[in-house]
Amino acid sequence: MLLDYGLIVDVETTGLDPEKDKIIEIGLLEFAVYSDEEAKITSMYSQLEDPGTSLSPEIIKITGITETLLQGKTIDWSLVGSYFSQASIVIAHNMEFDRAFLMKKDEIKKTQCHWACSIRHIDWKKYGFKSQSLNYLACDQGFVNPFPHRALFDCATTFQVIKKYIHELVHNSYQKQYEIQAVGAPFELKEKLKQNGYFWNPRKRLWCKILFADQLQGERDFLKEEIYRGNLRHEESLID
Amino acid sequence: MLLDYGLIVDVETTGLDPEKDKIIEIGLLEFAVYSDEEAKITSMYSQLEDPGTSLSPEIIKITGITETLLQGKTIDWSLVGSYFSQASIVIAHNMEFDRAFLMKKDEIKKTQCHWACSIRHIDWKKYGFKSQSLNYLACDQGFVNPFPHRALFDCATTFQVIKKYIHELVHNSYQKQYEIQAVGAPFELKEKLKQNGYFWNPRKRLWCKILFADQLQGERDFLKEEIYRGNLRHEESLID
Repeated sequence: MLLDYGLIVDVETTGLDPEKDKIIEIGLLEFAVYSDEEAKITSMYSQLEDPGTSLSPEIIKITGITETLLQGKTIDWSLVGSYFSQASIVIAHNMEFDRAFLMKKDEIKKTQCHWACSIRHIDWKKYGFKSQSLNYLACDQGFVNPFPHRALFDCATTFQVIKKYIHELVHNSYQKQYEIQAVGAPFELKEKLKQNGYFWNPRKRLWCKILFADQLQGERDFLKEEIYRGNLRHEESLID
Repeated sequence: MLLDYGLIVDVETTGLDPEKDKIIEIGLLEFAVYSDEEAKITSMYSQLEDPGTSLSPEIIKITGITETLLQGKTIDWSLVGSYFSQASIVIAHNMEFDRAFLMKKDEIKKTQCHWACSIRHIDWKKYGFKSQSLNYLACDQGFVNPFPHRALFDCATTFQVIKKYIHELVHNSYQKQYEIQAVGAPFELKEKLKQNGYFWNPRKRLWCKILFADQLQGERDFLKEEIYRGNLRHEESLID
């Protein structure tokens, strides 16, 4: 039985800051989700867009996209908006990044779509994957992304790696998630934090972990006993 | 230097006959051709279309496309037309097939595009490839098509395999080609015909070969001496 349509989206940009950087390519992959069979691709779109600024050598190296290639190119944002309108869920690999850039576009903002992240809404560790990097996930599932960092190929690779876990991803995307920040954790305990799934946030300069509401109490217990030795100092914040 | 934009197109259909069968999926891959660097993808589009008829079990098996998947789906033919209008050349792997279906659409017919075939306008044999089948060409170049017979993935695979040979393909597509039919060739000489690049046409029930104008005289000599022993009986026809 056909349940719903989902959309996988990826953008390539001139840099990491959604406030000052711009989109140079979009990839959209629409798929159908079934109750009783594998998810299947229904439609795809990809287009370049000239940002009107120059590209850094790093971006050219990562994406293979050059200024010449972008000349005269524009994304059909009303077409992109119609893809967003038709989808019940919009998925990106590292959703915060793509969402921040896309929400700057009125055509997308007004669709009020529900977002999901194929990094944090699938428990990759549980399935034995050692990395959540898109190309490593593909590699561990036996295939290769022919054009990494070209938007639609990243969408197709995402589709391939999440296909088996799509129902888990959809379910988890509707659950509340929290970020725990291990503020003031002793330096010598960093290995213990790492082993427990904490990642280093270089901007905030502290160890963080993302988890669901029902995992919060267990985490508090761990921090109290193993990290803070009685005095809880961590911070918890709901993330979207 | 940017020379031109090309378009690779592929259609999935309900069957082999353009007179009675219908398109169920289209894939379009637009790319930029340079004089001094590798061709690069600029834009892609893929969409399903409900043909209003049932699908044969064979088509479902080959493509993975089901009737449920097609429900309510339509191709945006005016968007497809705009891709055709912008391209200097339209390429398909086994062009005659895709062209026959696409030329039924007014939006495409009116663009009067120039077509090329990535099977017969590249001399694959010269480069040591034993098969011109799309997935075998990919395999011989070290990669795998993740979704064979899903239109856009066939386009992307075609792009990957022709990228190195794009200038030869464009050049050859502007040369006149002829089909030679070895009418009445003795049965016992079929191995000789095969070795010389003839393929069996099951519909016409004879051995055929496609070649360029400047190869015609050499071929006539071969046929006269080796096949017909003096009496030329073959037929030559200009193909488009």
